[in-house]
Amino acid sequence: MAEQHAILAAKDAVLVHSTALPDDMLRIKGYDFNQGVDHRALLQSFLTTGFQASSVGQAIQEINTMIEKRLEPVEEQKGGDPSDSSPSHSGCTIFLGYTSNLISSGVRESIRYLAQHKMVDVIVTTAGGIEEDFIKCLAPTYLGEFSLSGKELRQRGINRTGNLLVPNDNYCKFEDWLMPILDKMVQEQKDEGTHWTPSKMIHRLGKEINNPESVYYWAYKNDIPVFSPALTDGSIGDMIYFHSYKNPGLILDIVEDIRRMDNKAVFAKRTGMIILGGGLVKHHIANANLMRNGADYAVFVNTGQEFDGSDSGARPDEAVSWGKIRMDAKPVKVYADASIIFPLLVAETFAFHADKLIPEKTQ
Amino acid sequence: MAEQHAILAAKDAVLVHSTALPDDMLRIKGYDFNQGVDHRALLQSFLTTGFQASSVGQAIQEINTMIEKRLEPVEEQKGGDPSDSSPSHSGCTIFLGYTSNLISSGVRESIRYLAQHKMVDVIVTTAGGIEEDFIKCLAPTYLGEFSLSGKELRQRGINRTGNLLVPNDNYCKFEDWLMPILDKMVQEQKDEGTHWTPSKMIHRLGKEINNPESVYYWAYKNDIPVFSPALTDGSIGDMIYFHSYKNPGLILDIVEDIRRMDNKAVFAKRTGMIILGGGLVKHHIANANLMRNGADYAVFVNTGQEFDGSDSGARPDEAVSWGKIRMDAKPVKVYADASIIFPLLVAETFAFHADKLIPEKTQ
Amino acid sequence: MAEQHAILAAKDAVLVHSTALPDDMLRIKGYDFNQGVDHRALLQSFLTTGFQASSVGQAIQEINTMIEKRLEPVEEQKGGDPSDSSPSHSGCTIFLGYTSNLISSGVRESIRYLAQHKMVDVIVTTAGGIEEDFIKCLAPTYLGEFSLSGKELRQRGINRTGNLLVPNDNYCKFEDWLMPILDKMVQEQKDEGTHWTPSKMIHRLGKEINNPESVYYWAYKNDIPVFSPALTDGSIGDMIYFHSYKNPGLILDIVEDIRRMDNKAVFAKRTGMIILGGGLVKHHIANANLMRNGADYAVFVNTGQEFDGSDSGARPDEAVSWGKIRMDAKPVKVYADASIIFPLLVAETFAFHADKLIPEKTQ
Amino acid sequence: MAEQHAILAAKDAVLVHSTALPDDMLRIKGYDFNQGVDHRALLQSFLTTGFQASSVGQAIQEINTMIEKRLEPVEEQKGGDPSDSSPSHSGCTIFLGYTSNLISSGVRESIRYLAQHKMVDVIVTTAGGIEEDFIKCLAPTYLGEFSLSGKELRQRGINRTGNLLVPNDNYCKFEDWLMPILDKMVQEQKDEGTHWTPSKMIHRLGKEINNPESVYYWAYKNDIPVFSPALTDGSIGDMIYFHSYKNPGLILDIVEDIRRMDNKAVFAKRTGMIILGGGLVKHHIANANLMRNGADYAVFVNTGQEFDGSDSGARPDEAVSWGKIRMDAKPVKVYADASIIFPLLVAETFAFHADKLIPEKTQ
Repeated sequence: MAEQHAILAAKDAVLVHSTALPDDMLRIKGYDFNQGVDHRALLQSFLTTGFQASSVGQAIQEINTMIEKRLEPVEEQKGGDPSDSSPSHSGCTIFLGYTSNLISSGVRESIRYLAQHKMVDVIVTTAGGIEEDFIKCLAPTYLGEFSLSGKELRQRGINRTGNLLVPNDNYCKFEDWLMPILDKMVQEQKDEGTHWTPSKMIHRLGKEINNPESVYYWAYKNDIPVFSPALTDGSIGDMIYFHSYKNPGLILDIVEDIRRMDNKAVFAKRTGMIILGGGLVKHHIANANLMRNGADYAVFVNTGQEFDGSDSGARPDEAVSWGKIRMDAKPVKVYADASIIFPLLVAETFAFHADKLIPEKTQ
Repeated sequence: MAEQHAILAAKDAVLVHSTALPDDMLRIKGYDFNQGVDHRALLQSFLTTGFQASSVGQAIQEINTMIEKRLEPVEEQKGGDPSDSSPSHSGCTIFLGYTSNLISSGVRESIRYLAQHKMVDVIVTTAGGIEEDFIKCLAPTYLGEFSLSGKELRQRGINRTGNLLVPNDNYCKFEDWLMPILDKMVQEQKDEGTHWTPSKMIHRLGKEINNPESVYYWAYKNDIPVFSPALTDGSIGDMIYFHSYKNPGLILDIVEDIRRMDNKAVFAKRTGMIILGGGLVKHHIANANLMRNGADYAVFVNTGQEFDGSDSGARPDEAVSWGKIRMDAKPVKVYADASIIFPLLVAETFAFHADKLIPEKTQ
Repeated sequence: MAEQHAILAAKDAVLVHSTALPDDMLRIKGYDFNQGVDHRALLQSFLTTGFQASSVGQAIQEINTMIEKRLEPVEEQKGGDPSDSSPSHSGCTIFLGYTSNLISSGVRESIRYLAQHKMVDVIVTTAGGIEEDFIKCLAPTYLGEFSLSGKELRQRGINRTGNLLVPNDNYCKFEDWLMPILDKMVQEQKDEGTHWTPSKMIHRLGKEINNPESVYYWAYKNDIPVFSPALTDGSIGDMIYFHSYKNPGLILDIVEDIRRMDNKAVFAKRTGMIILGGGLVKHHIANANLMRNGADYAVFVNTGQEFDGSDSGARPDEAVSWGKIRMDAKPVKVYADASIIFPLLVAETFAFHADKLIPEKTQ
Repeated sequence: MAEQHAILAAKDAVLVHSTALPDDMLRIKGYDFNQGVDHRALLQSFLTTGFQASSVGQAIQEINTMIEKRLEPVEEQKGGDPSDSSPSHSGCTIFLGYTSNLISSGVRESIRYLAQHKMVDVIVTTAGGIEEDFIKCLAPTYLGEFSLSGKELRQRGINRTGNLLVPNDNYCKFEDWLMPILDKMVQEQKDEGTHWTPSKMIHRLGKEINNPESVYYWAYKNDIPVFSPALTDGSIGDMIYFHSYKNPGLILDIVEDIRRMDNKAVFAKRTGMIILGGGLVKHHIANANLMRNGADYAVFVNTGQEFDGSDSGARPDEAVSWGKIRMDAKPVKVYADASIIFPLLVAETFAFHADKLIPEKTQ
């Protein structure tokens, strides 16, 4: 008796009945390869594939909304000091952030495409995210393996970044290129009172590299501000260090840049954030968007997890609590390596809408 | 003096010169969207994009090698007991393993395509990987969100699997379908002395479902063995438990199945492993391949990490130490959610070679 | 004007005022080493340290509640078939699950302590979690490194499990030990009609090893059932495979075990789950607890993440939606390697209460 | 025949014999709780427990070596410009880096202990790692949950950092405290020509807070330089932004700081790196150590993974390839949340050696 009662209770627990789900909920259904390989249809099927495939599908939608809003005519100007508040003339100011390793990787070409065609409005990256772009104009990076011995590589003067290999000679070439520019910068500071900031230095370097393969060449050409407050944290810093013993006095001020950066958010009509990776680039863009009570749209692509309380791994909903993303936004996080995801996202968003986004003559 | 000496030493450390890298090393270069959106070319560019994009590129190559070897004519038969050693007639026996969540997701449709066209030779999955396929023939799964409240869902009888939602009614329907089959199985065991094993039960369920949307319908039709030693660990087990109080006596033997599974590796000419996720499915396929001193080809797609010593997260090189992968193999691990990766892999491998792999009449 | 207005709006967004938090909320405060190194106080301070340290603190509380409830006298028996429903006489039936790598590691000694003193009621593990315990009674496992070359290790016959090394000779010794036992098992099946299941085989092996270093020796002595439905997935399976060619006929039935396992949950007064790692062990324990409409207490320790929709990485709240954990429970997940966490948990829970848990004579 | 041959070959593959391992290899053995709960012995047993427990054991050894070398008398001064090259008088200059969330957590108290007793020589953190320390002197942070709704929290003015809650009023209090200091800084810049850098500003704030609970109060008292090149990326930046509209002109130069930072490495006898988390703090310390051809000792504690090519997740061996860690070093990475690990490390290293490290009078 007691046993039968227990078994029946078990059955009740297992076979609970459900209330109906809303009619418009998406049903899970993957791509049917019997219809042949149609990549666009396959990527569209991601939305109903579940897990991170669905997140990719949602990220595509979110970025396409940013693009659509960006193309909306802006009726009236939110004013401000024209010299540094740089009011965006677009209906949605898009902030693009990425960690340095993505510039080391082939994701650089996707980013360069966006800068070349002025598809984003503000860029934030780390020091490596700046210098690796210039270094790649001077010499190539190679595909290696994650498991190569650090000691053997050092003995051969080969630096490893994940499964990429960068010969140290590339940095020697960078030194040759950068040192005369640093001399000129110090000279201009003395002669013309130039007040250097990281973003101004990046603008100048973009002009100097004068190479259409470079992200920052195009940022320079298209006047896209690039913020990197810790610009000294990398090879540029190494060169500045050595240079300071030969030709001291250079000042790089981060106060003017935070003002410029924050104004990009404050004076925007709407904003969208596309952030690849974590650390400074993620925090910096989100923090600026707090100044406008939150971004309207957000896509994060990274491999970080929330459990350690890091900002890098935090879900977008944490940013909502801080006012960095609007309460009514539908932010998307894709948990994956951006080297796979970002080219796919660009294919289905910016590049898909190239005809609308690129003025005819430059297409 | 001392200072200048120190600065020079620093410069020497920073500006170490490199020895030359081999001429044939791949240079890192991402896709150039200025050439338009050509998805196939984009996916081909993954190989030189670095990080996990390169791993995806390598996984495509590895699977295409499996396919090529599989198509090679097998001259002479490696013999054996025809009843259970089931010598593979293919030049490369492909083992496909996946965790249950992938059947819950839209990856199921990619797997079903492979089973439908007999593109793989052995399947290993968990109990959920079996039953969710049948349940999806009875009622749909929906797209939800990772953050939905467990308590509220339970009150509504809705089960969550990541960002998927499965109404509990689906399991009630599954009970209605499975119970009479269990009755028949017990009857056949008594009457005909049927010696049930998990793989035989799955074969039978595939026949009973009789639905071309089902992976195991096709595995049944195409005589692809499906191993799931812990078949009782899920809804099937729940039903078997309840059934045992109504109609006791069913025996599911796992000894015959391990013999059949291991023979699939032992009597193969070559083997390839494609394993999505970790846990039992990963270990079970790799362990069988130890019996042949290692698989020739291997692709792992999962999000596990090695640091906790789990088999799930172990790099393929750990399997080499055990003799589960050949010492001269070039196994590939892609660190990513298979919901994104597997459809892309199928697009560039099995589906790309559909004309060679699918007999004309069934195409 | 417009600018000043914008700046004021920014200030309003940044300097939002907060509503009061409840008085009894814990304040974040870490251990103060100025008071000297008091490890117990340090571990107690984890609760208010935040992030996963707080999760460790909560896990200690949750397990201590399980222990407290387990010690409560059970007034009246929930009946049932005494032969297999094995009603627990404890106020809280504790299910302990762990993946095989933890038996390979020194966590084994913590687990053995729990089995030795009958501090847990049901054990679930994978095949490796069984065999590695016996193998360690035959020969030691060593500390190596994660980065050792698989090829070089295979050439030397050394198997790697994370940063552990197991000489393959250990498995040869295991074969010598196991083969005669398999002979006896087949004999008893034939002679006495023994109906072997994985749990019965583990019980027998625990008796045969007759070594107080073994977890399963104590499980045998203390009659703690150990479930491992896929017991053939490992070295035991290899031996069964070879043995089947010499002395065929052994049957290992998983149906009787699922009945026994589920009954452990169904006939328990309360249940607690302590699950280290993911995969089968996590699912199997949680699934059994669905049969009682959910476990009362739960602690998960693993490194999995929810984003890929795996059961391994799912948060406890996903199990609530399935009815595997009670809606009013306060389950805890610690995101960390159990090799660090579990010994700390045992120190502050089972071992801390050893005087209450261990009958005087055996202490 | 063929079958038997195949089975024998399988057996040969499975039962490969091993070559002997060196006699001095550590055997895996966990803590035996039968000897009672001796926490120190338990933590010592971590070394032979395997997986990350062993990494914790190795990290304890590595830090204790740093401490031992740091206490060695430094015979002769490596000279240099006394004003900014700040030659370390210790035998091992210890760089401590941590992300901001650790200051938000109770790990702050461990860090403050190290600063208070001048146990480390250089600190690197992010903007949040600075300001949260001061904010905690003004109002408390609370323990919440990872799953709290961002929208509901924002409506209540409560910010979430992982499972921590920080009322936004705390930031209002911070504004009240910081604004007058910014006024003074601008004034001093104008009047005295003070050349502000992030490290000088942090030093000044440490003086102003004048509170022994503060990490940076003690860094100020003990003259430990604290570097944070992107100091504007957080609440301090928000305040500087607002302040710039009331009282413009402040300059924060990062060039002088990179010179000071790099000199800390260049002029050190030996160096050790203890880095909790990733991003800027990890890169900045390692990059400075490239200037001396590599750190002698290194301990990383973070949850990042290498697969995405991030610097955050890179294994120490990647830093060896760059010359940031010496080729003959034995760097240790612990894959875990520092909230659990760092207090344990301090207990077994700095605090364990407190009698040697703390001058008697201050003990």
